[in-house]
Amino acid sequence: MTNMGLRRSVVLKRRPSGEPTPDDFSVVEDSVPQPQPGEVLTRTIWLSIDPYMRGRLREEQTYAVAIQIGEVMTGETIGEVIASGSPDFVPGDMVSGARGWQSHSVSPAAQLHKIPKGAAPLSAYLGILGMPGATAYAGVTEICKPKAGETFVVSAASGAVGSVAGQLAKRMGARVVGIAGGPDKCLWVQDSLGFDDCVDHRSLDLRRELQAACPNGIDGYFENVGGAVQTAVFEQLNPFARVAMCGMVSQYNDKTMPPGPNLGFVVGKRILIQGFIVTDRLARFTEWRAMAEPLVADGSLVYREDVIDGLENAPDALTGILSGRNFGKLLVKVANEH
Amino acid sequence: MTNMGLRRSVVLKRRPSGEPTPDDFSVVEDSVPQPQPGEVLTRTIWLSIDPYMRGRLREEQTYAVAIQIGEVMTGETIGEVIASGSPDFVPGDMVSGARGWQSHSVSPAAQLHKIPKGAAPLSAYLGILGMPGATAYAGVTEICKPKAGETFVVSAASGAVGSVAGQLAKRMGARVVGIAGGPDKCLWVQDSLGFDDCVDHRSLDLRRELQAACPNGIDGYFENVGGAVQTAVFEQLNPFARVAMCGMVSQYNDKTMPPGPNLGFVVGKRILIQGFIVTDRLARFTEWRAMAEPLVADGSLVYREDVIDGLENAPDALTGILSGRNFGKLLVKVANEH
Repeated sequence: MTNMGLRRSVVLKRRPSGEPTPDDFSVVEDSVPQPQPGEVLTRTIWLSIDPYMRGRLREEQTYAVAIQIGEVMTGETIGEVIASGSPDFVPGDMVSGARGWQSHSVSPAAQLHKIPKGAAPLSAYLGILGMPGATAYAGVTEICKPKAGETFVVSAASGAVGSVAGQLAKRMGARVVGIAGGPDKCLWVQDSLGFDDCVDHRSLDLRRELQAACPNGIDGYFENVGGAVQTAVFEQLNPFARVAMCGMVSQYNDKTMPPGPNLGFVVGKRILIQGFIVTDRLARFTEWRAMAEPLVADGSLVYREDVIDGLENAPDALTGILSGRNFGKLLVKVANEH
Repeated sequence: MTNMGLRRSVVLKRRPSGEPTPDDFSVVEDSVPQPQPGEVLTRTIWLSIDPYMRGRLREEQTYAVAIQIGEVMTGETIGEVIASGSPDFVPGDMVSGARGWQSHSVSPAAQLHKIPKGAAPLSAYLGILGMPGATAYAGVTEICKPKAGETFVVSAASGAVGSVAGQLAKRMGARVVGIAGGPDKCLWVQDSLGFDDCVDHRSLDLRRELQAACPNGIDGYFENVGGAVQTAVFEQLNPFARVAMCGMVSQYNDKTMPPGPNLGFVVGKRILIQGFIVTDRLARFTEWRAMAEPLVADGSLVYREDVIDGLENAPDALTGILSGRNFGKLLVKVANEH
């Protein structure tokens, strides 16, 4: 049980230079706040750790506001309502929201979404049934659009987004090849997720292994990592290939960006490269959740979680996800469910 | 007048290394062939010189077959029918087709398109009313989709494609900024084409001049050149910008491709980068010609031609277009119209 009198929060102490470390954050305590009318008090049970969080620590911003020094880190959470000033929620309700790295939070009721009881484990609503799953769904169905007989490649294939993207492309009839780091992840991607093949990006000759796994070239690519993996995949894209640019985690800690691929091939091969952020497509969340809940419940869609215990370990978890240390959807267990 | 007994053709003598030179080609002569039933004999009047031709000289190919040593160079032409084995054509008809670098050609009737008499000058059907115009039309309306109030940038702005792309975007209500090589071209782009601004890519600080010309960032980019121009434009793209990748002429002579831009920005800014080749979209040709003919006739759409006399000068013309020596749509006058 959490301490009902004190709230713990993880705040940014200083902007990391390169790889973030736990020293870049502090844990602070204050009193658990009380909800005003229209507000809801929750205790956090699960906190999601995602690569995009590294971008929030940079001074310069693209699509979201930077976290300021002393501010609580942002993050998606699942919590239990423990006091409510809103007629829409009662104590005991389980809710998802972007409530940040803290043990308790008071939120306007409109910022929370009730989670149905019993359809799937609570934590799945931060992974396959949450933002990562909806991201995979949007990128695959709106950008890559894999067709039967085509070859679809996804990097970070064992991760929260990549594992769903590949399973979706497989259901759409494509030959699906994952790229992951190390033999354990590759084996799981093939054996448990059912991908047709998985290439270890740490292998000595990534290009040749990818060629062997994709003898007919690559028609759709779901990009999560960038760097050498991107180079190898881009070289093997077929005419009219579609690239969903979801993330480039390999460079999130870089101070200056390395050069990228010469884009001459994009013209001759009529390549589509499309960046996207799932929060632009909120309608897809609801759609995806309704579609995926029964498939998760009956085991047709598979997922794997990597659980770190304790809010104070969230900073180290973030360091880990940026270097690929996690294996599956990375979660911090902030408190017990019951 | 052409010699009616002999046909001259420009054939590839050897693959150029770097910049092509006239020594990479030979002029050969044979007898003017006679059309068989279903075929048409034309004498070439105009030959179009376009940057894509450099790609045909490479051994490795992307979307079109390489020209072989000894083979006649491909190219779009306008000619006059001088003998016909087809009921669809009679001597005196003016036709367009991809008949190559030669003074005469025999073609299956289905490969020729009749040009209406009097609607516009013949040569316009190789430029603004031909492949370059249709290319601009497809890229602007299907990919860049400029909206009123947005900023649209086009490189090689005084060229056959760029000049049309910018005028189209202007008609769609965008603020239009060209990028061209040298003050003469820039002045013409502003004064005659009516672009809002034009930046000289040879200026000492391209990035800053582009910033000054695009104070609200860039929402649509029509890419014809690549290299440093691409880098400067990409840095200033707004969220949700659309990039039509039409060509990268600055590197067509390169033996190895230079590195390109790091693509991290594509994710956060949700950029669309789309390569295209207008011959994939043949329906757009007809559509464009019908739309543009009256606008060319009444002077609403402006174009400029750079005419080189004599088929034997086609190789040097190709060298010139790859270094930006031409000013306007580059044409070789192979013979007189009458």
